[in-house]
Amino acid sequence: MLTSSILLFALAAAPGVREWRQSHEREILAEYFDLLRMPNVASDTANIRKNAEAIRGLLTKRGAKSRLLEVEGAPPAVYGELATPGATQTVLFYAHYDGQPTDPKQWQGSGPWEPSFRGTEEKGGESRIYARSASDDKAPIQAMLSALDAMRAGGQRPSVNLKFLFEGEEEAGSASLGKILAANKDVVKADFWLICDGPVHQTRRQQIVFGARGITSMQVTVYGPRRELHSGHYGNWVPNPAMRLARLLASMKDDEGRVTIAGFYDGIEPLSETEKRALAEEPPVEDALRRELWLGSTENAPRRLSDVINEPSLNIRGLESGAVGAASRNVIPAEATASIDIRLVKGIDYQAIAEKVTAHIRSQGYTVLDRTPTEDERMRSAKIARVTLETGYDAVRTSMDLPVSRQVVRTVESVRGPVVKMPTSGGSVPLSIIEDVVHVPMVMVPIVNHDNSQHSANENLRVQNLWDGIETFVALFTMPEK
Amino acid sequence: MLTSSILLFALAAAPGVREWRQSHEREILAEYFDLLRMPNVASDTANIRKNAEAIRGLLTKRGAKSRLLEVEGAPPAVYGELATPGATQTVLFYAHYDGQPTDPKQWQGSGPWEPSFRGTEEKGGESRIYARSASDDKAPIQAMLSALDAMRAGGQRPSVNLKFLFEGEEEAGSASLGKILAANKDVVKADFWLICDGPVHQTRRQQIVFGARGITSMQVTVYGPRRELHSGHYGNWVPNPAMRLARLLASMKDDEGRVTIAGFYDGIEPLSETEKRALAEEPPVEDALRRELWLGSTENAPRRLSDVINEPSLNIRGLESGAVGAASRNVIPAEATASIDIRLVKGIDYQAIAEKVTAHIRSQGYTVLDRTPTEDERMRSAKIARVTLETGYDAVRTSMDLPVSRQVVRTVESVRGPVVKMPTSGGSVPLSIIEDVVHVPMVMVPIVNHDNSQHSANENLRVQNLWDGIETFVALFTMPEK
Repeated sequence: MLTSSILLFALAAAPGVREWRQSHEREILAEYFDLLRMPNVASDTANIRKNAEAIRGLLTKRGAKSRLLEVEGAPPAVYGELATPGATQTVLFYAHYDGQPTDPKQWQGSGPWEPSFRGTEEKGGESRIYARSASDDKAPIQAMLSALDAMRAGGQRPSVNLKFLFEGEEEAGSASLGKILAANKDVVKADFWLICDGPVHQTRRQQIVFGARGITSMQVTVYGPRRELHSGHYGNWVPNPAMRLARLLASMKDDEGRVTIAGFYDGIEPLSETEKRALAEEPPVEDALRRELWLGSTENAPRRLSDVINEPSLNIRGLESGAVGAASRNVIPAEATASIDIRLVKGIDYQAIAEKVTAHIRSQGYTVLDRTPTEDERMRSAKIARVTLETGYDAVRTSMDLPVSRQVVRTVESVRGPVVKMPTSGGSVPLSIIEDVVHVPMVMVPIVNHDNSQHSANENLRVQNLWDGIETFVALFTMPEK
Repeated sequence: MLTSSILLFALAAAPGVREWRQSHEREILAEYFDLLRMPNVASDTANIRKNAEAIRGLLTKRGAKSRLLEVEGAPPAVYGELATPGATQTVLFYAHYDGQPTDPKQWQGSGPWEPSFRGTEEKGGESRIYARSASDDKAPIQAMLSALDAMRAGGQRPSVNLKFLFEGEEEAGSASLGKILAANKDVVKADFWLICDGPVHQTRRQQIVFGARGITSMQVTVYGPRRELHSGHYGNWVPNPAMRLARLLASMKDDEGRVTIAGFYDGIEPLSETEKRALAEEPPVEDALRRELWLGSTENAPRRLSDVINEPSLNIRGLESGAVGAASRNVIPAEATASIDIRLVKGIDYQAIAEKVTAHIRSQGYTVLDRTPTEDERMRSAKIARVTLETGYDAVRTSMDLPVSRQVVRTVESVRGPVVKMPTSGGSVPLSIIEDVVHVPMVMVPIVNHDNSQHSANENLRVQNLWDGIETFVALFTMPEK
């Protein structure tokens, strides 16, 4: 009842924002294209700083007090704040401005940092913007900036104190975020954080997500002969590292997609009744996804996507050994490498699960080292692997029953209608790194389309999602206090 | 007894050749470096023809009648002949002038077609020539040319009619050799062929080989989602093609290295008593190879290398999916590809065994196509794979008991001392393609070092093997008739 009446009120109160946007689309997109033109891989030091300075400038332009939060050897985080006299709540909006590495050759039409505006007939005639980070995760940054513009144009002022924190190293594992927060605890202090990353629901309905999977990742290299060998003269006698790697990886999952590593699923924190109910209410997406992605079968069938997302996963990100196709050579490769990422849910420690994977590799007869083995080590081991553990973080889940959780749901529903509530995002955001330092509730409010090819070539943003996002952020910036 | 006396005689008769070589090493190497400077991948049409013309010129310079044997769309074969008035036997010497494709970036010091002469301390201070095809298979061509020079300088004339056939497409599967031979049956007619390819024994002793494994190869691509997907949002539900490929490959071999594909070992023609005796007499190489190659274990242990070479093998030449290392992206790749080569022994048909591999893939639940599947086919199949069969040929084995087999052994032993006799070369040469057309006995007389990195980056020739090869070819060109 309450929700419905607020909804009517808000939908009635918001038309100024939409009209402002409709008459300023060209300016909004021009500003956004400038933002997307800056290459933004976290390891590209010069360019990542260029992004940070530019975004800081965009915040300043909106009247925010802004600064770069720095620690040695890491991309800066961009911080901004807009104090609201008389407000009793402070809300911090998190997003990230760095993007995943990408191979420009795989992009069609224009490169990753040459944003282009295309009507995509393939996707039902919708207009989309193609560029690295068009969705992940510069879109919320632009939507927030434009929301502030819309409010100024309409004479609206925030109802709460606003803080903005835009990270520059999220796609590289947020290795320095903890340090940045610890060094700026008072700066980033807030009653709750809104994490603006990830996609809306596959039905295109607005989604609010109360947690995110954690992640850890690793590189596994298996060794064959000291150097590539002629596969005729030595094949059948010299071990083939690609075959050994295949057997090792195959030992990690069964044919249904269930991970077979000992203890992999141990310790998962069960879902609450509210969370189970929210999952049960999720509109069906599976048939549409199977059609969209050309899938003849799924892993862990017949379970639902949102169901398995509340379990840890093991995914092969890449395989490399020798060469395939026209570049194939008749050799036994010298080594074979797999890149693996593991997604975690609440109750599973990222370091402990990486250790379980390593223990599993040992159980398959491997000597495991965290560096390249020496000649002597290779000769003394029947099988030898190098396992390089990469950084990671744990999953976090905020209770849907908290007052702030309800406050955010009510506010977003006031402009976007009934939302899909998910306990856990499949994608990982470094919520645990934040939680460990700032100890506040976090709720994720994503705005971008799910079919955005994020992390891949041809990443794109459905333009309507940017427009909707602006309205969502205006609502959040002006939300009724608790 | 007979062997010993011939040996003494020949070793006494040959010094002129060695002295000539010792005083002409610079000229020989200058000519050879020019030959190695020409890029020689069979698909590089312009350069492969440059090689053919150059080699034809080198034959002409030695007084041979020479020509290019051509069929549409293939590299020419270089043919030459030197008739010997009064000779009763005609011997054809086969080699190939094309080389395996290679990635110049993987070469150290100088590129694949910039031959360099290095003392390799790593290999015991021996001098080696580094270049693509320095060993495989331009070395025998140079050794034959220099042998003719040495004979002319010493006033020696051939005892038999000499024919030379240098193929330009061997590393690309000899797809046109059969056609070239069929169109030139009278041209290439001979009493027997000497196949000059492959390495001498790992002990560096001269080796004579009476057959070669056949080969076939294929590319296997397994499909996941239509496009790369975020591994967090979809991992655990959308099938990962790299994991499926790993499971598929793992199903093809057991942990000992035995192929588990139904019927893979069926039909192998057993070795004769003479062949078994020859294998039993082979000097041990396994411990030295394990040290040289840093192997902590071998496949099919504890069997000997030469033992398993007389069985078919299945080798993964390459794996590719997504990316590894610093380029890793958190995605479910859209597809995964393995490149496989299969080596064959006498009694196994190359097309039939490829069909057994395809049947195995079907038995693992895959729909198998020989082309990229359509959206509809992908949606209708729980698992789908594209299997592209590449060309191939069968194994051949010449009896060690034939008079010509004994004639060749005697002649080579006269200059190189006791030889190692092997029924089958591990490497493949297209003997069956030759046998099918010309129906003559073939014996392989290799000259290059085994540790030559053939087919890989940094291919090299131990210079002493070139010098020994010149002496071996003089002996063969002047061999006592049967």
